Amino acid sequence: MDMREGPQRLVVIGGDAAGMAAASQARRLRKPDELEIVAFERTHFTSYSACGIPYWVGGDVQDRDQLVARTPEEHWERHIDLRLRTEVTEIDVSGRRVRAHDLETGNEYWTSYDKLVIATGARPIRPDMPGVDAAGVHGVQTLDDGQSLIDTLTRTEGRRAVVVGAGYIGVEMAEALLRRGFEVTVVNRGAEPMATLDPDMARLVRRAMEGMGITMVDDTEVTGLRSGEDGRVRAVVTKDAEYPADVVVLGIGVEPVTDLARQAGLPLGAHGGLLTDLAMRVRGHEDIWAGGDCVEVLNLVSGQEQYIPLGTHANKHGQVIGTNVGGGYATFPGVVGTAVSKVCELEIARTGLRERDARRAGLQYEAVVIESTSRAGYYPDASPMTVKMIAERNTGRLLGVQIIGGEGAGKRVDIAAVALTAAMTVEQMTALDLGYAPPFSPVWDPVLVAARKAVRKVRETR
Amino acid sequence: MDMREGPQRLVVIGGDAAGMAAASQARRLRKPDELEIVAFERTHFTSYSACGIPYWVGGDVQDRDQLVARTPEEHWERHIDLRLRTEVTEIDVSGRRVRAHDLETGNEYWTSYDKLVIATGARPIRPDMPGVDAAGVHGVQTLDDGQSLIDTLTRTEGRRAVVVGAGYIGVEMAEALLRRGFEVTVVNRGAEPMATLDPDMARLVRRAMEGMGITMVDDTEVTGLRSGEDGRVRAVVTKDAEYPADVVVLGIGVEPVTDLARQAGLPLGAHGGLLTDLAMRVRGHEDIWAGGDCVEVLNLVSGQEQYIPLGTHANKHGQVIGTNVGGGYATFPGVVGTAVSKVCELEIARTGLRERDARRAGLQYEAVVIESTSRAGYYPDASPMTVKMIAERNTGRLLGVQIIGGEGAGKRVDIAAVALTAAMTVEQMTALDLGYAPPFSPVWDPVLVAARKAVRKVRETR
Repeated sequence: MDMREGPQRLVVIGGDAAGMAAASQARRLRKPDELEIVAFERTHFTSYSACGIPYWVGGDVQDRDQLVARTPEEHWERHIDLRLRTEVTEIDVSGRRVRAHDLETGNEYWTSYDKLVIATGARPIRPDMPGVDAAGVHGVQTLDDGQSLIDTLTRTEGRRAVVVGAGYIGVEMAEALLRRGFEVTVVNRGAEPMATLDPDMARLVRRAMEGMGITMVDDTEVTGLRSGEDGRVRAVVTKDAEYPADVVVLGIGVEPVTDLARQAGLPLGAHGGLLTDLAMRVRGHEDIWAGGDCVEVLNLVSGQEQYIPLGTHANKHGQVIGTNVGGGYATFPGVVGTAVSKVCELEIARTGLRERDARRAGLQYEAVVIESTSRAGYYPDASPMTVKMIAERNTGRLLGVQIIGGEGAGKRVDIAAVALTAAMTVEQMTALDLGYAPPFSPVWDPVLVAARKAVRKVRETR
Repeated sequence: MDMREGPQRLVVIGGDAAGMAAASQARRLRKPDELEIVAFERTHFTSYSACGIPYWVGGDVQDRDQLVARTPEEHWERHIDLRLRTEVTEIDVSGRRVRAHDLETGNEYWTSYDKLVIATGARPIRPDMPGVDAAGVHGVQTLDDGQSLIDTLTRTEGRRAVVVGAGYIGVEMAEALLRRGFEVTVVNRGAEPMATLDPDMARLVRRAMEGMGITMVDDTEVTGLRSGEDGRVRAVVTKDAEYPADVVVLGIGVEPVTDLARQAGLPLGAHGGLLTDLAMRVRGHEDIWAGGDCVEVLNLVSGQEQYIPLGTHANKHGQVIGTNVGGGYATFPGVVGTAVSKVCELEIARTGLRERDARRAGLQYEAVVIESTSRAGYYPDASPMTVKMIAERNTGRLLGVQIIGGEGAGKRVDIAAVALTAAMTVEQMTALDLGYAPPFSPVWDPVLVAARKAVRKVRETR
């Protein structure tokens, strides 16, 4: 029983989206005389949009500060004791304390908590290969990373850029580098870019990127990076070839930062992320919460845990954690796996399960692909749109949707995201009352066209 | 008992979206030796997009033929005996026959049916006021109407256009006339344009239209039209003023064309439309179906019948009717009242119930309004967006959403349309996994921001 007087003490590890959303929401519910809040952040920045970095590098966003949703000063004003440039190096679960290391002064100290939020985020996967630490080789996870890459792009005279990896970050960075006037090569381990799509849809992305003048090298493992005598990168090396490079961007993906959690014996999942309950409490730990890019989330369609680092989830996690820490009640029921992206004019979206996800989850399914347009065919700037829809065999329950197309394609995936959440069948979807007017949609929205085709396929094979 | 040999006979009255979609789908399921199909159409055209007329008048669509989804020739090729310029003048329900009047030859004849589809559509409300038949006064329901208006716009030297009515058609025609270089005045009976929105949201539309240089005259009943000696319209007359006009467009709305049905004793609803069951059979009549702009539809949120003439519903009706007539099974479960429109750059969308609809349905509710942006705030061309959300008191069930904003605002209403269909609560909506990336949405989609605010409001007042 807690016999102490005075306020409870909340410690937050990590000052980006999840951590500071949790701190802010807890502060909204509890005044400083009820709850002290101490937040530790390794870098100089808080509450920034990592997702915005490619657009800052590409020049769409002029100023780094625009990516900062809330500055340290704003947090201090709200009576959050935010400690910048301070790294937490250990969690002592039984002693209810964390060890902090002030990176400026070198000071180390223990500080106690009643409630702990772990929001340690993700870090770019930096493959263990020769030359990866050469000058001119960049990740794009933090604002510091972004600044450092922009400095390189500004300084370098060469115009050859190689992006390693062709996931969201890889594809977005390819566009950014293209916009800055670089010759861009994307080297990708998979047979197609965008492994978050099925290969038949990903192929459309590759073709579009080639059409933009990007050199796509698929099915190729990078074995190392070659540097010059000045220590600057010169080329990306694969088994069969060398790709000359004045700058290299690593877009291989990120992994959860859970070293502290692992040392503290907290439960981790198959993907290395922390495991929580639906209130975002670390499983088995009443007073420890975790959220953002360091946790795994439940996929409501497959029923399995997944690792999906994404700012929008991190913000929701923080909101839920802050509400619960503050004495309210909220849950994060899970995700359906929605993601949207673009490369130049091409919009790329997905939600739910790919074919391989369905198989892995033990589901039998039918898949259909249709071609339509973003607006009525006769309306100006109607752009082509390809929709793939996957439905469960027999039941016809929607399992997933992938959309590739011009303006208006991407956010259409939200229709399917809501339908997945509601466990609708494709037959139910054919009756959806979606917004129609010629500048917005053909009279049958492309998602409805796909649903109609999926209904026929499910019936035929029932 | 039907003892005849040979094919059954389907008669379709009305050759636009609902009628011809029904005929085409029935033909897909039944060959000519199983089912004869005869379709009667008053005009020269079939299967055209009336919704596209404002964009044709405005010059976005160059050619009338682009608005025709399927020509008479295409129907004939599919063995549909389409009879153009032929009006059905009577339905003899007990005799299972209709009387047709060939408008070209003057011939009248009876023809029998086994199954009948009524798809007689809508006609513009033409107020009974002095001068309404003057030259230069136009409705915009059929392709003939559109051509006639374009001819007037091309011929007239004056540049003053008055639109009577400020619903979808009125607002879209205001844009079309503006684009053709006319000075546009919109005279509107209501206090605000777009009566399909709540007044607080409609006000934003009025302000935007005024900002485009359109003169908005609200709260004003048109009492007549004044013509010159040449029989051409000169002015729109109200109780207090006259508005000079070289061309007048009537955008007062449409009404169902159900004279035939009424004479035949078929059941009509409170809004004058035919009443059907969920398979689109006219209530109480096993072998008569009806769909499109001449029927009332069930609003799934209010539980009440409503009149919503809209091409997308008409196409769905036709699809369902054709499937049932052809021996399959399909239903049209109802609508949630989704509509989307635009005037120049402003997108206008709604779904579900307005405040007054909720009251009329006996529902108590909370309403919230939020301001957000279409993209991340720091991303170029992020445009403002206002979202209004209405939720049921106590339960928090979503009742309606209205959205006004720049590009990307309109089709966001689909999120709410699906959520309404699934009877989600606003609390469930806050966890929706919607597509997020800076070019597509702020990290909290505007719809989620509205849902969060609605949750707080519902809780406070529970």
